[in-house]
Amino acid sequence: MSFARIAIIGVGLIGSSIARAVGASGMNAEVRLYDASPDVRARAQTLNIGLVCATAEEAVCDADLVILATPVGAMAAATAGLVDALADGAVLTDVGSTKRAVVDALAKITPARAYFIAGHPIAGTEQSGPDAGFASLFENRWTILTPQDDARPRYQEALSRLSAFWTALGARVEIMDADRHDLVLAITSHVPHLIAFNIVATAEDLETVTESEIVKYSAGGFRDFTRLAASDPVMWRDVFLANKDAVLEILGRFTEDLAALQRAIRWGDGDALHGIFERARRVRREVIEAGQDTPAPNWGRDQGGDGKS
Amino acid sequence: MSFARIAIIGVGLIGSSIARAVGASGMNAEVRLYDASPDVRARAQTLNIGLVCATAEEAVCDADLVILATPVGAMAAATAGLVDALADGAVLTDVGSTKRAVVDALAKITPARAYFIAGHPIAGTEQSGPDAGFASLFENRWTILTPQDDARPRYQEALSRLSAFWTALGARVEIMDADRHDLVLAITSHVPHLIAFNIVATAEDLETVTESEIVKYSAGGFRDFTRLAASDPVMWRDVFLANKDAVLEILGRFTEDLAALQRAIRWGDGDALHGIFERARRVRREVIEAGQDTPAPNWGRDQGGDGKS
Repeated sequence: MSFARIAIIGVGLIGSSIARAVGASGMNAEVRLYDASPDVRARAQTLNIGLVCATAEEAVCDADLVILATPVGAMAAATAGLVDALADGAVLTDVGSTKRAVVDALAKITPARAYFIAGHPIAGTEQSGPDAGFASLFENRWTILTPQDDARPRYQEALSRLSAFWTALGARVEIMDADRHDLVLAITSHVPHLIAFNIVATAEDLETVTESEIVKYSAGGFRDFTRLAASDPVMWRDVFLANKDAVLEILGRFTEDLAALQRAIRWGDGDALHGIFERARRVRREVIEAGQDTPAPNWGRDQGGDGKS
Repeated sequence: MSFARIAIIGVGLIGSSIARAVGASGMNAEVRLYDASPDVRARAQTLNIGLVCATAEEAVCDADLVILATPVGAMAAATAGLVDALADGAVLTDVGSTKRAVVDALAKITPARAYFIAGHPIAGTEQSGPDAGFASLFENRWTILTPQDDARPRYQEALSRLSAFWTALGARVEIMDADRHDLVLAITSHVPHLIAFNIVATAEDLETVTESEIVKYSAGGFRDFTRLAASDPVMWRDVFLANKDAVLEILGRFTEDLAALQRAIRWGDGDALHGIFERARRVRREVIEAGQDTPAPNWGRDQGGDGKS
């Protein structure tokens, strides 16, 4: 049973992409949007991707699916402001990049008449705001759902409906425990972003190399990190605060491994370096075979970058 | 005065791209190729991008431009094997990613009748070998030349000719001191690659997250690092051994800054995190404005990734 009225709270890259994807999917559902920022609401109004409401309550009332798409740190407050308006039997979900903190905060304030199932679509770009969204963002990407341990038949039915919803947007759905999600995402997303933010800051702070030199010669590899580091700073601040334990655990491993590489460089241990470098190609191949990246050299971004002469 | 016969020693991504770019440029020059690997020579023969020679001497004799395109660690030996065959007045250059070690090794074995000018095109992809090259690789990219302090008029003339050669391949040319090159490239290329190799190894080694999970959810950011880490392991081993001092200096800065971020996460200092994350967007904008990357979200690699709904 699909959803008839979908409320999206937070109209940034992800929220606006869901609204667009619902429209493009052909599912017969009304989309209502709310954002705490008047500027974002005004902008959303011009995009024609759903009915923009003046309050969260107005967006939520009578909705059978409510999707929280705010930064992780704002979710508890946003939810507290709308729980009273939740309809009987409503499915409440979110798209936050961390899951344990969100589950702990939201499960306890969700009323018994509604069904809370946390979620996270592993999709995005470095851009943010309502204009950055697009309908195909979730195609061939995974959405992870981290349901509660709730045996009520209607909860299980809600889980099936939410899975079907994401499938209809082109996503593949995986069920996972919230803690496991946070550990897996720490290595596949959170620490990579932290490292990208960090090297851009390191580069900016060098007294010995100018920013214009860094920009000029960034095609040597640095430019890749600037893309990840251009992601929304508020969203990412919240991610690191909410997933502290897993991020610190993975970061500890990363730093330890980097110290070993540093030592190999200092002592001229070419075999150790080569051994580590060689292992990485296989992982790249697997990423491409799993359909999670394009095989085009340089992602096809450069002229002629299709590998043809 | 352009070159009439160009010898390329080493027919990988860069060497074969130069051969193709010479052909595409319309310059009236004969291209001769040599690679130490019989397999690469056999493969190059089928590509029709130049005359493949059985020995380096045969490629080099009568050439007025000789380009060394081997890994940095192989350049001294490759050069020692061909100096006797160098023609009177020949310009000898290289494309290595580090410059001080190459300059120190090659300047002293270049005979007085030839002119050695080290160089480095800041261009490439994650692929390698003769099939990976393409003619437009150098377009709109910078090539750095690090000439000797040599006041002979014919040396200065050789520098002008070499600059004009790279310009004809579509590159922009910059003259720089070899030590400065190595420091600038340590931050714009070498340390970014080291970090990418490192995080892929860290991910592979985790006992708590499987490789298939890492691959499946790599679109969260990790996949970007797998591309850089798929680069040629021999080439990169040589880079780190040859540019040890600058790499260790920049790596020390990176690690220090990362420790500060780690501390901010541990103590929940959201303002510190936000302050650092926010600075990165400006650098991204500058990279795009300088024509060194595409503004397309996700580099346009995903369906619909053009930012349109």
